Amino acid sequence: MPTVLITDHPWPDVEIERDILTAAGYELAAGPIETPAAAVVEDLVAQYNPVAIMTCWAQVSEKAIRTPAALKVVARLGVGLDNIVIPAATARGAWVTNVPDYCVEEVSDHVVAMALAFWRGIAAMDRDVKQGYWNPASARLHRVASKTVGIIGYGRIGKLTARKFSQGFGCRVLAQSRSLLDRVGRAIEPGVIAADIGTIQREADAIVLHAPLTPQTRHLVNEEFLCRLRRKPLLINVSRGGLVDSDALVRALDAGTISGAGLDVIEGEPAPPKSLTSRTDIIATPHVAFSSNASLAELRQRCTEDVVRVLRGERPLYPCNQPVGI
Amino acid sequence: MPTVLITDHPWPDVEIERDILTAAGYELAAGPIETPAAAVVEDLVAQYNPVAIMTCWAQVSEKAIRTPAALKVVARLGVGLDNIVIPAATARGAWVTNVPDYCVEEVSDHVVAMALAFWRGIAAMDRDVKQGYWNPASARLHRVASKTVGIIGYGRIGKLTARKFSQGFGCRVLAQSRSLLDRVGRAIEPGVIAADIGTIQREADAIVLHAPLTPQTRHLVNEEFLCRLRRKPLLINVSRGGLVDSDALVRALDAGTISGAGLDVIEGEPAPPKSLTSRTDIIATPHVAFSSNASLAELRQRCTEDVVRVLRGERPLYPCNQPVGI
Repeated sequence: MPTVLITDHPWPDVEIERDILTAAGYELAAGPIETPAAAVVEDLVAQYNPVAIMTCWAQVSEKAIRTPAALKVVARLGVGLDNIVIPAATARGAWVTNVPDYCVEEVSDHVVAMALAFWRGIAAMDRDVKQGYWNPASARLHRVASKTVGIIGYGRIGKLTARKFSQGFGCRVLAQSRSLLDRVGRAIEPGVIAADIGTIQREADAIVLHAPLTPQTRHLVNEEFLCRLRRKPLLINVSRGGLVDSDALVRALDAGTISGAGLDVIEGEPAPPKSLTSRTDIIATPHVAFSSNASLAELRQRCTEDVVRVLRGERPLYPCNQPVGI
Repeated sequence: MPTVLITDHPWPDVEIERDILTAAGYELAAGPIETPAAAVVEDLVAQYNPVAIMTCWAQVSEKAIRTPAALKVVARLGVGLDNIVIPAATARGAWVTNVPDYCVEEVSDHVVAMALAFWRGIAAMDRDVKQGYWNPASARLHRVASKTVGIIGYGRIGKLTARKFSQGFGCRVLAQSRSLLDRVGRAIEPGVIAADIGTIQREADAIVLHAPLTPQTRHLVNEEFLCRLRRKPLLINVSRGGLVDSDALVRALDAGTISGAGLDVIEGEPAPPKSLTSRTDIIATPHVAFSSNASLAELRQRCTEDVVRVLRGERPLYPCNQPVGI
């Protein structure tokens, strides 16, 4: 039976994937739960000679993509594509797919949860109470309605984050995106104004990163970006760790340029620097913003179904390239 | 100069209050930051013979109210009135006031912040990451839009909490209040349905208490209430600790009848039982849901201005009784 390789699965089992693939006549070979190194993926590919590679966090290198005898698709269990060498797949006639719409609710929920945890002191005060302190006079809390939220990246997720802050809490939202360039300064939704980065740097009380990681966005938030902030904002990153220069972030926290950071992604994860994660002005979660019982099941099902679709000879529902010869 | 007594002030100084009172020709005597016992308040009253008593958390007893030679008003720095013996004030011709509308945004923000902290694992996972664990596979997170939120008490704050969950996140909201009895089962706002307690017990994924503490609502959430829950909801209490029987709550958490509790108020505060606060399925904050820089300034200013209004011989803006002889 032809084999599909899943390089890594940060969930306990691969039953959802196996059920769909078995029913379609394919065998599933599964890598580990923890993200394996690129070389380990290359070994798995050499061992199983898969017709499809499904991957969550593992790097799928050019070598991994070139090795199989008859690779049809490299399918990302997620949205971002920075761990797949797309041109290598395109060149050998294999599709690259993702699942762009499975966790829009979850990621935007996570952003609001992190901002509110800061503004209402939830994580810090719960820690204090658990240590036996009950000190209401120490509270320095905020009214969410009074906040201006800047959102960098206005795709599916950015739009929903904007809506939650504006419709839910009455926040003023500034949204930045290349697609909004011709509307800067104008309202694009009730309570949401298209803005440039400079306006966000001057006016935002929270800055949310909803941008993909590309060579152009790498270390988008660096020393230069941070030194232009004016209102000691929160920084919230739920996209990719590489968007933020961690050293510059620590200096900005120490200098009081920003008042805190909510990080679901950090450069160096799954072993991010303790100098970041141990700080009480950082709230960190282990790259789970996309996750819920509902979203994980949807992600795994939709991704596997798109793999089966390609293996049947059809066009995928979520194509991310146009393979040579197709 | 006639004296106004502030029995307690869980904020660092009393400058806002003193400025307003001094300008009006009154002296301010201030009790401690920490809540004093009722007997301490009685001693302060005997010492200062105030024309007005302002109180945040301290118990203002019948004796404290009867003692001053010419008491005109007992003013609550807050919303709830359970720490003031209102009939004693009424009987001696003194007004009782509160500030009903100063923290509506903050308390409803706090409720949403606590619910999201649970559903997105913010407090628990941040604790794990700070201890050096990075374990995304442990995530058991939730999509907020899929939740039904039951709200007990539908005054100013309950309404705004309902709106934040329904308009912001698309939750289904069930609202219970005596004022809604004739509309049970009908939509009262978009996404908000009037409901009875039984429906909330059966259908809610989170139950929020926005009710005052009265003899009728004391231990509203007791063994009997908890054993009727069906969906392992969160319980969120930002009103008064006495609404919840803490022992029954612990048993319900141990039994899995509820999945967690967000408590800004706990019986026994400011020294709540560690058996509650040390649990990882409880998120606790030290009675600060009302608090923000903006709301505290508004609270202190509005309360003091109402005191001055009464002392000038006018009717207060926020009367909570009808004094005998006025």
